Amino acid sequence: MSSEGLCLGVDIGGTNTVLGLVDASGRLMGESSISTCAHQPATQLFDRLHKAATVLGKSLSGRWDLRGIGIGAPNANYYRGTIEQPPNLSWDHVDVVSEMSRFFKVPVAVTNDANAAALGEMLFGSARSMKDFIVVTLGTGLGSGIVANGQLVYGADGFAGEMGHTIAVPGGRECGCGRRGCLEAYASANGVRRTVHELIASTMEASELRDVPFNELTAKRVAESAARGDRLALETFDRTARWLAASLADAVAYFSPQAIILVGGVASAGDLLLKPVKRYLEANVLSVFKDKVAILPSGLANGNTAVLGAGALIWNELKAGPKGS
Amino acid sequence: MSSEGLCLGVDIGGTNTVLGLVDASGRLMGESSISTCAHQPATQLFDRLHKAATVLGKSLSGRWDLRGIGIGAPNANYYRGTIEQPPNLSWDHVDVVSEMSRFFKVPVAVTNDANAAALGEMLFGSARSMKDFIVVTLGTGLGSGIVANGQLVYGADGFAGEMGHTIAVPGGRECGCGRRGCLEAYASANGVRRTVHELIASTMEASELRDVPFNELTAKRVAESAARGDRLALETFDRTARWLAASLADAVAYFSPQAIILVGGVASAGDLLLKPVKRYLEANVLSVFKDKVAILPSGLANGNTAVLGAGALIWNELKAGPKGS
Repeated sequence: MSSEGLCLGVDIGGTNTVLGLVDASGRLMGESSISTCAHQPATQLFDRLHKAATVLGKSLSGRWDLRGIGIGAPNANYYRGTIEQPPNLSWDHVDVVSEMSRFFKVPVAVTNDANAAALGEMLFGSARSMKDFIVVTLGTGLGSGIVANGQLVYGADGFAGEMGHTIAVPGGRECGCGRRGCLEAYASANGVRRTVHELIASTMEASELRDVPFNELTAKRVAESAARGDRLALETFDRTARWLAASLADAVAYFSPQAIILVGGVASAGDLLLKPVKRYLEANVLSVFKDKVAILPSGLANGNTAVLGAGALIWNELKAGPKGS
Repeated sequence: MSSEGLCLGVDIGGTNTVLGLVDASGRLMGESSISTCAHQPATQLFDRLHKAATVLGKSLSGRWDLRGIGIGAPNANYYRGTIEQPPNLSWDHVDVVSEMSRFFKVPVAVTNDANAAALGEMLFGSARSMKDFIVVTLGTGLGSGIVANGQLVYGADGFAGEMGHTIAVPGGRECGCGRRGCLEAYASANGVRRTVHELIASTMEASELRDVPFNELTAKRVAESAARGDRLALETFDRTARWLAASLADAVAYFSPQAIILVGGVASAGDLLLKPVKRYLEANVLSVFKDKVAILPSGLANGNTAVLGAGALIWNELKAGPKGS
């Protein structure tokens, strides 16, 4: 009796690293999560990742074998199999393929976490019939995976799609990348926290969020307050949507996408974010693009966009054959 | 004796429409120019274009025949063969292929003037070995033709690459598109004129340009003043470069291009523009892209980027076979 082929999908985020076993049709057969511990050396993460993957594998029933490993990470380089100068992690240069080859003897592919999310939506989710679309990941930071003519835009060196580091507000908030005014400093979980505190400082608006310290505040907590009608929380989402939509209007001018898919923690606020983003996008966009671009949530089950995307990356590689062939 | 095959390349600009006969290797065998007269109905332009092409054809020595017509125009739609709501022209919707078929019985292809320029650089110019690059046309307005993975980025509806209508200065100068702060209102021939007049109004700087009325001022005239050391003219180019470079830093984050090629009237100022653009780009760009992106002039003879590009478009179509085959 033949065993089932599964791929390990790994999403390395600023806070957590999530791993899952994904079958060829995009079903997530098992999933777990470890802390990224971004301040520790990367090697320690890969040691812990190996242990977590082994435990996860043993938890599955039935016969299966590992076909490949796909990894999504900030500033991952698809061409070189590396992570280089990631904006929210303290590592400088990590050879991910070598690190994984210490433990596993299967093909390994690496890409930007947002590029992985885009492949996940293209193979298994909201973009299944599309050739031109953008996936924006609203997590700790903001990433984008861009598909044009049915292909991921990797650029000359594999680092394309850094929408989070386009400038939303010239001279604006400091960003983790060392510059000022990046979209990521506004439209991301961290951006939401900063906007809440800006409004706490600049307005007299009463809010339950005035009792929550910055370091304890999450985008989820702000969304919960908004759902209870907290006006400062509602204003935070409105401003977040306005900044994001202004940048999306630029992205539409560059790419003319059929849809923009918003995924990740902040996007799980749902209509609280998606509706004003759509409204402000239509108000901002060049007339030739009006009423042409859909704003969609992830089409992947349980919001596991990134892990399924990392799985989609390696399934795609296995089908297409190794790089350069 | 067989006759030589030539294609007619046409560049419809905000001010002039240039036409030329281009051979398969990118040689421009003859060229002429007519006024676009953007305030008149488009049909009149195509009547005059037919006459000009006939005169141009008769001026060539030797035997040749017309293989196809490639047209670059603002807001041209490659998929539909139309020009739709062009920002700097008074037309609403023009079926270019039908207009040309009144006179010519050869294949006709249409694209954005900047996309045509990008194809010209890729087939015959500065981007001959590149798969990821951006051509920015700095004419009356600002256009961009973007190549990713070796293919032009047309987007879902054929209107991708509108970099001139990304927002450079939120809430800034009025733009011909009806919005505010578009890059085109800053980095273009018109943008240069507006910057000169902004500096005339806001500074006490002596300048020979204080004797030139707005409607007589050209970017070429400003470049000539700068070459003579006129400080207001020099400051104008510095500011133009700074605005353009800030937007190019965003474009680099999106596309990770190998090079950005600056073409068109304003770019003919040469190092006066290219050197500060390169310097400001390096100062602005996300660290992972530092020292990776070349800023290049057109690699096409005589600056006929747009006409050779329109020729490249149709030669490319003729080689690839008709659309959809």
